[in-house]
Order: sequence, then C-alpha cells, then structure tokens
Amino acid sequence: MGSTIYCHVIYHEAGETMVIQVNAELMNKRSAEALVEWLGSFGRTGKGGVTRLLYTKSWKEAQQALKNLMEENGLPAYYDCIGNLFGRLQGTETPGRTILTGSHIDTVIEGGKYDGAYGIIASFIAVLRLAEKYGPPKKSIEVVSLCEEEGSRFPLTFWGSRNITGSYDLDCVKDVKDSDGMSFMEAMKEAGFNPQDYSPPIRNDIDSFVEIHIEQGMTLERNGKQLGVVSHISGQRRYTVLIKGESNHAGTTPMPYRKDALTTAARFITFLTEQAGETDPHLVATVGRLTVRPNVSNVIAGEVEFTLDIRHHQEPVIDSFCHTIFKELKQLSVNMNTEAFVSLWMDAKPVKMDSGIGQLAMELSLEKSILCQKMISGAGHDSQIFGQKYPACLLFVPSQGGISHSPEEFTKSNDLEAGIDLLTDVLHKLAY
Amino acid sequence: MGSTIYCHVIYHEAGETMVIQVNAELMNKRSAEALVEWLGSFGRTGKGGVTRLLYTKSWKEAQQALKNLMEENGLPAYYDCIGNLFGRLQGTETPGRTILTGSHIDTVIEGGKYDGAYGIIASFIAVLRLAEKYGPPKKSIEVVSLCEEEGSRFPLTFWGSRNITGSYDLDCVKDVKDSDGMSFMEAMKEAGFNPQDYSPPIRNDIDSFVEIHIEQGMTLERNGKQLGVVSHISGQRRYTVLIKGESNHAGTTPMPYRKDALTTAARFITFLTEQAGETDPHLVATVGRLTVRPNVSNVIAGEVEFTLDIRHHQEPVIDSFCHTIFKELKQLSVNMNTEAFVSLWMDAKPVKMDSGIGQLAMELSLEKSILCQKMISGAGHDSQIFGQKYPACLLFVPSQGGISHSPEEFTKSNDLEAGIDLLTDVLHKLAY
Repeated sequence: MGSTIYCHVIYHEAGETMVIQVNAELMNKRSAEALVEWLGSFGRTGKGGVTRLLYTKSWKEAQQALKNLMEENGLPAYYDCIGNLFGRLQGTETPGRTILTGSHIDTVIEGGKYDGAYGIIASFIAVLRLAEKYGPPKKSIEVVSLCEEEGSRFPLTFWGSRNITGSYDLDCVKDVKDSDGMSFMEAMKEAGFNPQDYSPPIRNDIDSFVEIHIEQGMTLERNGKQLGVVSHISGQRRYTVLIKGESNHAGTTPMPYRKDALTTAARFITFLTEQAGETDPHLVATVGRLTVRPNVSNVIAGEVEFTLDIRHHQEPVIDSFCHTIFKELKQLSVNMNTEAFVSLWMDAKPVKMDSGIGQLAMELSLEKSILCQKMISGAGHDSQIFGQKYPACLLFVPSQGGISHSPEEFTKSNDLEAGIDLLTDVLHKLAY
Repeated sequence: MGSTIYCHVIYHEAGETMVIQVNAELMNKRSAEALVEWLGSFGRTGKGGVTRLLYTKSWKEAQQALKNLMEENGLPAYYDCIGNLFGRLQGTETPGRTILTGSHIDTVIEGGKYDGAYGIIASFIAVLRLAEKYGPPKKSIEVVSLCEEEGSRFPLTFWGSRNITGSYDLDCVKDVKDSDGMSFMEAMKEAGFNPQDYSPPIRNDIDSFVEIHIEQGMTLERNGKQLGVVSHISGQRRYTVLIKGESNHAGTTPMPYRKDALTTAARFITFLTEQAGETDPHLVATVGRLTVRPNVSNVIAGEVEFTLDIRHHQEPVIDSFCHTIFKELKQLSVNMNTEAFVSLWMDAKPVKMDSGIGQLAMELSLEKSILCQKMISGAGHDSQIFGQKYPACLLFVPSQGGISHSPEEFTKSNDLEAGIDLLTDVLHKLAY
C-alpha cells in the first residue's frame, strides 16, 4: 500500500456531522486492480497463486490488514466471534437495518487472487464511493470479509455465512480436523477466536445481502457481456459410486466371463454424460475423481470408486436425472456381473436470488450501458446461504477463459471496474 | 522336509551301473502337494502368500534347497552363470541332446505357491519317477528351475529363459534397478552370481522344452477338464493412452463446452470392450490401470492416462482390432474436443507350441482317461521364449476360480497329480 494519504470528507446530515476518512491515493486511483493485487499478497505462493486457508497465518494477516484498511478509510471495523470481519457505514434513518455486502477471504490451495477477494475489495470501494459521493446512507451498510467459504482446510464449507444465518454453530465443528490432524477449534483459538467466547453470531438486522464475484465460467466471456445477474444458484448433489467386480488375469479371462468394474464405470459415465447433454442446457454432471483397484495394467479392475457431481437450479430436474441414471446403473451392473453402491454425501438445494434486486441490477446496468445478462450460477457461493434467509443478490464479472481456483485466474481491469460501478449503484438504491 | 530317508535304486543299463538316490518318503507319498507346500515356505508372507523375488534371500534359499533336493535324489545339479538351476538325468544314447522341463522359481509380490513352483516340482517328480521306473533315458533330461519370469522385482521379464535362448544378455540389465534403487548387477552379485563371471548361458543342446503350469484362468474348471494342452500362447500388446482435455469447474462449464478427458476415456473403454467381445472369442482387451488428473470431485478431468492390454494368438487379429479401436479413438477425441496420445510399450508376438508334442500329449491323456482339451494361453509363460527357438510344449492344470498371483491360488491335489502323470508320459516318449 505504500504510504497512506488520507483526505477527510465531512458530511453534514440531519444535524449530525460525520467524518469519513478516505485513503486518497486509492480513492483517486479507484483501483480495484491494485487492491486485489495487494490482498493477493497475503498467502502468495511460489507459483503466483494464493493459498489462504481459514485461521492460518496468511488468513489472519489478510483479515487484519483489511480491518486496518477499513478503519484507515473511515469504516469502523470489527470481528464477530468466528472471525468474520465487518466494516460499517452507519445509517442515519434506520441504522438498525443493514445492507450487507462482500464475499469470502479464504481461498482454495493454489487458488487465484480474484475468487472471493474481488468481492470484498469491490464492496469496500463501492461503500467508500457512496460515502464520498452521497454521505451516510439511510440504512447502514456493512462490508463483510467472510472467514470461510471454500472448505479447503477443513471438510466443511460456508463456515462464515452459515454462522451469520444460524445454520451452523460450534457443535458442527467439534470433531472436525484438518489434514494435519489439527482440530478446528484449536485452529480457531490460535487465530485469536477462542471457542470459549463463542456465542452464535446470528444477524437479524440484515435487510439484504449483495455479493459480487468472478463468474468461474465462460458464459459472460462467450456472450461478450461485462456483467451477470444471477437468478438462481444451482442445487448440487454429490455422490460416491462404488462398482465391485472381480480382479482377474487380463490374459486368461475371456471377455464374457469378466466382472470388470472399470468397464461398468465407463459405460455408466458414457451414459450419464450423454444423458446430461440431452436433458437440459443448465444441467451439468461430472465424474471428476475416479480410482481403480488394484490399478495394474494386466489385472482386470476389481473395484472402481468415483464421485458424481450433479447440478441444476430446479430440484425436479435433478430428481428426474438421478432417477434415470441410477436406473441405468442398476441395469448395467446386472448386465456386467458387477455390483454398484451409491451414496449421497452432499445435497445442496437450489436457491433463488431476490428477483426484485436482480431486476434493479438489470435496469441500472442498462442505464449505465453495461452489457449485462441474467444467468444461473453453477458454482456455490455465500449468496446461496444468505439467500435462504434474506433477499440476496449475486453479480458476476467475467473470468478470462472461465478459469478459476488457479493462479491463472484473471479478470480484466475494465470488467472489475464495471462490476464496482454497478454494485455501487445497487447499494445506493438499497441503502439511500 | 523333516528327516530324509533315501532308498538307493540301482540300474544296470548298457553294461553301466547307475545309482539313483531317491527320497523314499517323498517318493512313497508321490506328493506334489507336499512339495509345493514345502517350496512355498521360502518367501511365505504373513497373509499366506509367497513373495520370492529374483536374487533375494528367499529366492536364494529356495534355489539352494531345490539344488540339495535334486542332489539328494540322485540328480546332479548345477547353476548357470545367472542362477538358473538344472538337475540332470544323463542320457545313455544321445546324452548331448537334452529334454528340458521345468518352470520359474520367482513369484509376484504376494503371489501364490503354485505359479511357477508347481512346474518345477512336477518336472522333478516326473523325472524321479522315470528314473525309478525306466532307469536312465536315451536323451538327457534336465529339470530346470528358471531364475526369473514375472518381472516383479526388476522391470524386465523372462530373464531366465531369455538367457538360455540367447535373446537377453548382461547388456540388457546394465541400467536396470529395482524400486529400492538397487542395480540388477549388484543384486545378482549379492546372490552369488558375479556379473564378472557372466558368459551367455545359451543352450544349443535342447531338443525340446516341456512346461507344466497352473492355468491362471477358468477355462478348464468351467469345462470340467483336468488338463489343457496349449496350442498357442497369445501375443500381447500393451499401450499407454493419454487423453488431454481441460480441467474446469464442474458447476460452471456447460456440457457442450467441456473438454472432459474422463468422458473421452469412458467412451473409448466402452467401445473397445464391446468391440473385443464381438471380434473373436479369444481376443481379450483390458484397461486395468487408469489415473485421473487432478482427480477432484468438482473439477472436470483435464488428463486421463490408462493402460491397454490386448491379446490374441493370431497377430492379424490384433492388428485389425487395434486399427479399429484407434480409428475410433481419433474420431472420439475430435468429437469430444480432447487429444489422444497412444504409445506402445510391449509387443510380444504370438508363439505356436509344437503341434507334434501337443498331439502326443492329447493322445497320452486319452490313453490315461485324463479329461483334456486343447487351448490357447492368454498368459505369458517361459514356453513362449523357448518356443521361439526349440519345439516347446505347455500343459495346464486347473486353477480354482481362475485365481492366480494371489495367496488364494489353489489347484486340487488330484489335478496336480494328473498333470504329473501326463508330464511323466510325455517326457518318457521324448527321452526314452
């Protein structure tokens, strides 16, 4: 950040005087790019990626640096008991009602600098701009840097947003450990959030939640749009499928007598991907992880285990697709003399974003001549947690080449700025 | 073996007196089962399997114990310079022509006690019986315990038989190491076979080679036969196929825009296994090893690498099959927006066994009312190396459940004995 130059903007509103301290250098530059780069320096890896896992040193440094930045720029900042960070712009008319805006600070392992971070930076810049241009809002606005979304250190996701909405509490993590065997609570304590001080940080003052995020897909790029307004976040089901056959000699077992678990898996994957392509343009089905046992070139596979990830924004479509493919799996297994075992380990329901705020965002982008489209989010986001409790809005900026969760993640500066422009206007309409 | 009781059988033949020392206990029992069990004690594992890798301690102990057993039973025994062990019954008329009979002493890791070992024991018992019943043969007979066939310690196979036939020499192993980094030559030296003493142990005195082995398949069991006479040993081609696609987000990448390496692989495996089933009953095609990168449930597979093992006893059938499937792979890769790279790393030609000895074996089994059938061997055996240079005969006894290379390997005592009966008769016809 270099040396920090402040300008003191003084508002007089409803008889009160408020002083909002703004980092002039950044405000003059209005540079999302510079701030994203700066935030990406916390947890920067040798490969140019970012690894910033919940409650680690780089995570703590990033949150603390953001807290300082907020405070230096006139937003009083505070943590809740699990490490969600809030920077508050107090409302003047109904200060007890809050427009929450932001995203998550954690990353995947060797992720990029935009995923999550851009949403925090964009919200921060938007709020400073609003404060600068319009003074304090009627409703309060808070910028949030959510502590965790990705599930990259501990096997649970949305720790930040789920605590705020009350769907998770400390009980959910009492047996959770990271891959080094460190308990969730121990990690939390080390980061300065003593589980003994925990009390559910549920927020009942939230009027609406607005998040901006990189798309993590190619829809906007392909359509030549700068902005996406998300109407639904897809539901996700994740299964593990285990096919049991019989290991046998690759040379001495005639084809008709085989119980080849990998051939059954191959036929099923062929069927389900063809079926997904034919069912609905928004349906996606992925087998991303697959292991073969014993995995030897001259031995017929005795067991194959694979994951199956199915997403759509309408639950009946998922239901019907699953019914079709698992019926086929059953038949295939019989035909191939193998057995199939299916277990469901994740079932996130589709979530509808608030159509009013979505419509508002579409209209505002039209006014500003930002090329914008409605879309479905196939990826999960904090908005889907908030959207179950409060009106929520999720905006996307393009991801170059659709790449995310990678050091190659990139969004053009123009697109970052267009996103902040629209976010600023949406927040203005909601809070002023 | 407990205490050893010898009886001295004295033959008078062509004016000479030969004394053949026979272990009476074993000979009385005529127990292949007991000897297989005994040999399996060298390298016995905790799971009840056998791990007896080339030039290891258990390998050396097994060879030395066999050498002692041969010598105690009247067969002068010797090693060649790489550790193949021979027990010789000298011929009286053309002692310079030798009928070689036996199999390999090494096992896979956690293998069974029959694979290889049974062939050595059967040959040993057969030769003792012949000596006992008929005295010395016209041609010499040698029982061989081949030092290596499986390729389980070092990445090369048939080290024993390929030295005898001259297709391998010391140059072939000069850069070869085991998985612990020990060089082949160092291991050889440690086992007592100094590479400095190496001189190609090629045998030009071999009249024919006769091997008996467990089937390692279910053909005999399924057909209710006790014996198989192998007409051909299948050729084998092994390929590595690499499919390159593009890793991408499982939720945000619509099906038509995917470059899913695993889906391409699945379609190819589906096609090739269906095609193999339709082409020829003797053709087998196996994908036994497959790895996915990055192998994460919510990431589309960017790369999939798998092996392909194709076997048939007629090369034109393999040629035509490979042509068909790789043409399909090319088309599939284009259709799926992925790339495929195919590399051949093993190409063992089919080998025909000697039809004269095969016919003889069929007739002899008919005489003895042993239920017998001609068959193809889909597995590789030392006979395929010998069969390229000398007339060779390969006989099979059933493997229960087709299981081999496993502690579960099992062949019934009756079947072991029927095999020795037939082998004895075949050797009798060839050497007397």
